[in-house]
Amino acid sequence: MIRARYERRGPVPQDVIETVEMDEPALTGEEVLLEVLSAPINPSDLLTLTGDYGVLPPLPSFAGNEGVGRVAKLGPEAGNAVRQGQTVLLPVGIGTWSSHVVARASRLVPLPENADPMQLSMITVNPPTASLLLSEFVHLEPGDWVIQNAANSGVGGYLVQLARKRGLRTVNVVRRQEVAEELKDMGADCVIVDGDALADHVREATGGADIRLAIDAVGGQATDHLADCLAEGGTLVNYGLMSGEACHISPKSLVFRDITVKGFWLARWFRAADRERQRALYGDLTRMIAGGELRARVDSSYDVNQIKQAVAAAAAGGRNGKVLIVPHHG
Amino acid sequence: MIRARYERRGPVPQDVIETVEMDEPALTGEEVLLEVLSAPINPSDLLTLTGDYGVLPPLPSFAGNEGVGRVAKLGPEAGNAVRQGQTVLLPVGIGTWSSHVVARASRLVPLPENADPMQLSMITVNPPTASLLLSEFVHLEPGDWVIQNAANSGVGGYLVQLARKRGLRTVNVVRRQEVAEELKDMGADCVIVDGDALADHVREATGGADIRLAIDAVGGQATDHLADCLAEGGTLVNYGLMSGEACHISPKSLVFRDITVKGFWLARWFRAADRERQRALYGDLTRMIAGGELRARVDSSYDVNQIKQAVAAAAAGGRNGKVLIVPHHG
Repeated sequence: MIRARYERRGPVPQDVIETVEMDEPALTGEEVLLEVLSAPINPSDLLTLTGDYGVLPPLPSFAGNEGVGRVAKLGPEAGNAVRQGQTVLLPVGIGTWSSHVVARASRLVPLPENADPMQLSMITVNPPTASLLLSEFVHLEPGDWVIQNAANSGVGGYLVQLARKRGLRTVNVVRRQEVAEELKDMGADCVIVDGDALADHVREATGGADIRLAIDAVGGQATDHLADCLAEGGTLVNYGLMSGEACHISPKSLVFRDITVKGFWLARWFRAADRERQRALYGDLTRMIAGGELRARVDSSYDVNQIKQAVAAAAAGGRNGKVLIVPHHG
Repeated sequence: MIRARYERRGPVPQDVIETVEMDEPALTGEEVLLEVLSAPINPSDLLTLTGDYGVLPPLPSFAGNEGVGRVAKLGPEAGNAVRQGQTVLLPVGIGTWSSHVVARASRLVPLPENADPMQLSMITVNPPTASLLLSEFVHLEPGDWVIQNAANSGVGGYLVQLARKRGLRTVNVVRRQEVAEELKDMGADCVIVDGDALADHVREATGGADIRLAIDAVGGQATDHLADCLAEGGTLVNYGLMSGEACHISPKSLVFRDITVKGFWLARWFRAADRERQRALYGDLTRMIAGGELRARVDSSYDVNQIKQAVAAAAAGGRNGKVLIVPHHG
C-alpha cells in the first residue's frame, strides 16, 4: 500500500508531501482494510502542510482528511458492522491520500451504492461548511439575498446550490468572468467580478435589495468590498484566507453601519453540535449528493503516486474545480 | 455674538472652519440666550468637517456638538423652565463653538453649580461612550480584564477610570511610553506600547489572563494586535478610525479563535435606548464628573476667535488631553 506522508511543514506544500510504500498490516480485532476510492485535496489540507491551520497533527503525519473507501478485508471481529465490498465514508483525519487505509469497522459510515464515489468523497468538509454558513449566523427567509466571494471554490459551488434549494438568492463574487456561466447553471442569481465598485454593481444587479449575510473566504480588500454590500446591521462571516492577507474592514462599516464580523470553523461546530444535529445534517447532504442534486466540479484526479503534482495543482490558482486523489486499484 | 461655521467640507478641518459675527437675535417664546462656557473639540467633530462621519448636517452648518452654557437672557415664555445665571447642558448638535447660542428652555438640562464647567462640557460624547463600551458587548465581572488602544484619548481616559470603579482591570495600549504614568494615576493596571509583539507583552503583564473584550479606536494593524490579545471567543469593538486605515483582522483570529468584531456608535445607542436608560446613564456620569471623581485631561483652551488654531491643535497628534473652546465673556 502507498500513502502520502509529511515529516515537516513548509511554505510550498508539494515540497513537503511525499509517498511511502508500506506493507499491508495484519488486521486485528474489528480492524478493516479499505481500498481508497477517492479523496479530495481541500484548502485546509494545504494549510495543514504549510503550518497555517488552526490545529496541526504531530509529525510525521499521513495527509488527507476525508474520502470514500471500499471494504477489502475484514479483521477477525469486524464482520457485524460492515461487509466485504461495501462503500463507506472514511473516518476524518485518517490520512486518506493513500491507496489503502486501515480503520476500525465501527468508525465507518456505510454509503449508498451506485452513487459516484468521487462526489461522495467530498461530503465531510465543504458541503456542511456551505450549509452551516447559510444557517448558523443570520435567520434568512426564502427570497432573501446572500453574497459570497470565492464563489468558484468548492464551498462556493455547494453554497450556490444549497441556497437555491432553500429559496435564497445569491450574489457571487469572482475574480474571472469566465466562470459566470457555470455558476449560473448551478443556480447563481448574479455573478459579479470583484473590484472597488463592487457595492455599486451589486446594488444595480439586485435592485438595491438588503443583503444581511456576506460570506468571505478571501480576506484583504475583498472583505471590505463584501462589507460595503451589506445592509445596516448585516453580518460578514469569514471562513478562509485565500489571499493570505488579513481581512480589511473599514471602521465606517463597523461603527456607522453596525456590521458584525465573525468567523466559521467546521471543527468548532463539531465540538458544539450534538450527535443528532450532526447526523441530520450529514443525512440530508448524503441524500442530495448520492441523488445527484448537489455536486462539485472536479478539475482533475491523480493517483497517490502523483501526490506532489496533485498538491501543486490544488495550490495553484485558476483551477476549475476540486483536485482529487483517485488511487488506481489493479 | 461670534460663532464657528463651515460652508464646505475638506481634508484639512482648520481650512474649512471659520468664525462669523452675528447680531444677537430677539428672543421669542421659550427661547433662551446662553453664554457658552466651554465646548470640546471631539474626533467626531473633525470627521464631520472632513466629511468622514456617519451623518453629516446640511451646509452651511454651525460647528460644535456639545458644551455647557450659562443662561444670559430669557424669552417671554422661558421663565418656568430655567432661571437667569443657571449653568446648563447645551442641546446636542446646536453648534456649541460659539460665544453665545439660542436654545429652547425645555431642551436645557440644569447642571450642578460649583462644578467645573470645562469638565462638565465634555459629558455628552466621551464618558457615555466609555461607559457603554464596557457594558454593552461582553458581560464582565469584577477582576476581569479589558484591553484598549488609544488609551491616552478622551474616551480612553474615561474608560480607565470607569473600569477601575467597576473593579475591572485594564491593559492600555499606547504609542508613547511617556503617557504611562498619567494613565496609572487614573487607575490603569498596565500600560504597554503597541507593536507586533503586543500579545506576548500583554501575556507577560497579565500573567496570561483571559481577556474577553478589546476596544479599538485606531484601525489598521493596531486592530489585529488587539485581536491577538483576546482569549478564544472574545469580542473586539471598534469605535474610531484614528489611523485612517481599515481595521485589519487575521482570518485566523476569526476562524480558529472565534473572535467577533463589532462597532459602537453612540448615535445608534441613543436611537435604541429608552429615555429611562439615557437618564440613568447621564445621571451617574453627571454626579461623578461634578464630584471630581471622573475627569479628562485638558490640553489647551481657545477663544472662539481662535477657532482655526484650536481645530488644528485638536487634529494634530501628540496632544496631552482635550482641546476646548472657552469663549471670553467681557
